[in-house]
Amino acid sequence: MDRLMPAGIAAPELDIAQWFGEETSLAQLRGKVVLIEAFQMLCPGCLNYGLPQAVRVRKQFPEVVVIGIHTVFEHHDVTGPEALQVFLREFGIPFPVAVDRHDGRGNIPITMDTYRLEGTPSTILIDKSGDLRLTHLGAMPDLQLGAMLGELLAEKA
Amino acid sequence: MDRLMPAGIAAPELDIAQWFGEETSLAQLRGKVVLIEAFQMLCPGCLNYGLPQAVRVRKQFPEVVVIGIHTVFEHHDVTGPEALQVFLREFGIPFPVAVDRHDGRGNIPITMDTYRLEGTPSTILIDKSGDLRLTHLGAMPDLQLGAMLGELLAEKA
Amino acid sequence: MDRLMPAGIAAPELDIAQWFGEETSLAQLRGKVVLIEAFQMLCPGCLNYGLPQAVRVRKQFPEVVVIGIHTVFEHHDVTGPEALQVFLREFGIPFPVAVDRHDGRGNIPITMDTYRLEGTPSTILIDKSGDLRLTHLGAMPDLQLGAMLGELLAEKA
Amino acid sequence: MDRLMPAGIAAPELDIAQWFGEETSLAQLRGKVVLIEAFQMLCPGCLNYGLPQAVRVRKQFPEVVVIGIHTVFEHHDVTGPEALQVFLREFGIPFPVAVDRHDGRGNIPITMDTYRLEGTPSTILIDKSGDLRLTHLGAMPDLQLGAMLGELLAEKA
Repeated sequence: MDRLMPAGIAAPELDIAQWFGEETSLAQLRGKVVLIEAFQMLCPGCLNYGLPQAVRVRKQFPEVVVIGIHTVFEHHDVTGPEALQVFLREFGIPFPVAVDRHDGRGNIPITMDTYRLEGTPSTILIDKSGDLRLTHLGAMPDLQLGAMLGELLAEKA
Repeated sequence: MDRLMPAGIAAPELDIAQWFGEETSLAQLRGKVVLIEAFQMLCPGCLNYGLPQAVRVRKQFPEVVVIGIHTVFEHHDVTGPEALQVFLREFGIPFPVAVDRHDGRGNIPITMDTYRLEGTPSTILIDKSGDLRLTHLGAMPDLQLGAMLGELLAEKA
Repeated sequence: MDRLMPAGIAAPELDIAQWFGEETSLAQLRGKVVLIEAFQMLCPGCLNYGLPQAVRVRKQFPEVVVIGIHTVFEHHDVTGPEALQVFLREFGIPFPVAVDRHDGRGNIPITMDTYRLEGTPSTILIDKSGDLRLTHLGAMPDLQLGAMLGELLAEKA
Repeated sequence: MDRLMPAGIAAPELDIAQWFGEETSLAQLRGKVVLIEAFQMLCPGCLNYGLPQAVRVRKQFPEVVVIGIHTVFEHHDVTGPEALQVFLREFGIPFPVAVDRHDGRGNIPITMDTYRLEGTPSTILIDKSGDLRLTHLGAMPDLQLGAMLGELLAEKA
């Protein structure tokens, strides 16, 4: 079972090349619990587990801010922003999605590297104070994600 | 979306005719978060939603105490303790189950009446201080139940 | 993958103690494809797989006759006709259900024994000529059951 | 409920720009029951219903030939053969997939137009004699698809 990390380590700012939906930043979201779903549009686990779960959080927890981040580390040629835009519209993704920036060296984009994500889907939780409290790779039971959200929502900013 | 009730109202003690599995009481469980699943063995919503969810909580949250309570308010003749025992074994219910006591007046058993439950399945949450924090009738998304469990677990006793 | 048995062996008549819903017999159903779902009301596999699949067949194949048969071979005391009647109503079983007759010797009821069923749920298929074409124990993919129904429906009586 | 069309109308040959997996043709498949799943790689209904069902048929019916056809009629820029190749590998599609040919006029590719498909996912069934017996748009219960396959498999070539 996953557990939240203790508070105390600030979540690094996202380094974003492009936004679909309303642009934001972690600095702007201070005071809110934030769930960031890191995905790739042609990753089966993202389509089957990660993104549907993030959509459920968005629908069931109006006080949690949900953001997607497209962390492309493979198949860059066919999953660029133009393809992503089609994907987001066809699949009806209801939250803002950011394109993780590449610095032109290697395959791993900058934010994915900064957060040391090991693949997709990955779920990131940030508390009201802007601290990083979870990075989780792969599917996670709703009960467990819910428990961590409940704990973060109950914390004072 | 369900939310926890504020603390301050003590959960009434269970009034139990018979236990299957280890007997306990709310008094003994003080200091623990407790989930009580009120069900009837021939209630489809209990079999499809309430009991499987309680089993998931039992498996995923070792620090939460899960109890079933058989609150028979209809079909008493065919859902007595002998039938319940078969049901619990056949369906592999992994937590202790209490039989709500009838006082011989009316169809509603005593604990169900005390907690003002409106039907089955109903989910009851009790905090570490023994206060009643939720009674919920019917199915509930795992994310939401998880959030309430996470909040209760994060509270100090 | 299950396959139909060749035609040529007549399905033995059902030996029924009591009907819930419209009484019938295999003799009366000659000319129709018949699916008989053998179940016990406190058998998890029956509730999770066998009965829901039989309900789907009933809803999707108006030209197939679907019958349930309650083949009680364990827990007789708590799954008698009175309990079964509650079960059928609570779970909304939409097809006629027959209670397999016990001859008072051993636990296995007569029709279950005649058909050599090995447990519940079991699915029986009978063709338009009244021949026995399948007895299957346990869950079965819808595609495969559908294929056998499609083949039987295409046969001439 | 869908039903097979009567035999008598030959299925038009596929007009294919490129194959992934073993190349074939309807002429070569004469004598076999053929299921063709028409899809687009960024179509949610294809990912959630059409393709998983075609994969189940492939796994459960070794005597049925399953083929995918990528009938791109929208978002051509981001769903070309290079993107499709990634998709097929990432999603583990286990059957040969053909790219429907465009004639450079309009958005609808040639085979899709010839078969008068109205969208994706569409399921096509061809009998052992090479006749077209079904075109179905959208999701379809496994029981019903199974019944049509069972009927086609039972027919003589």
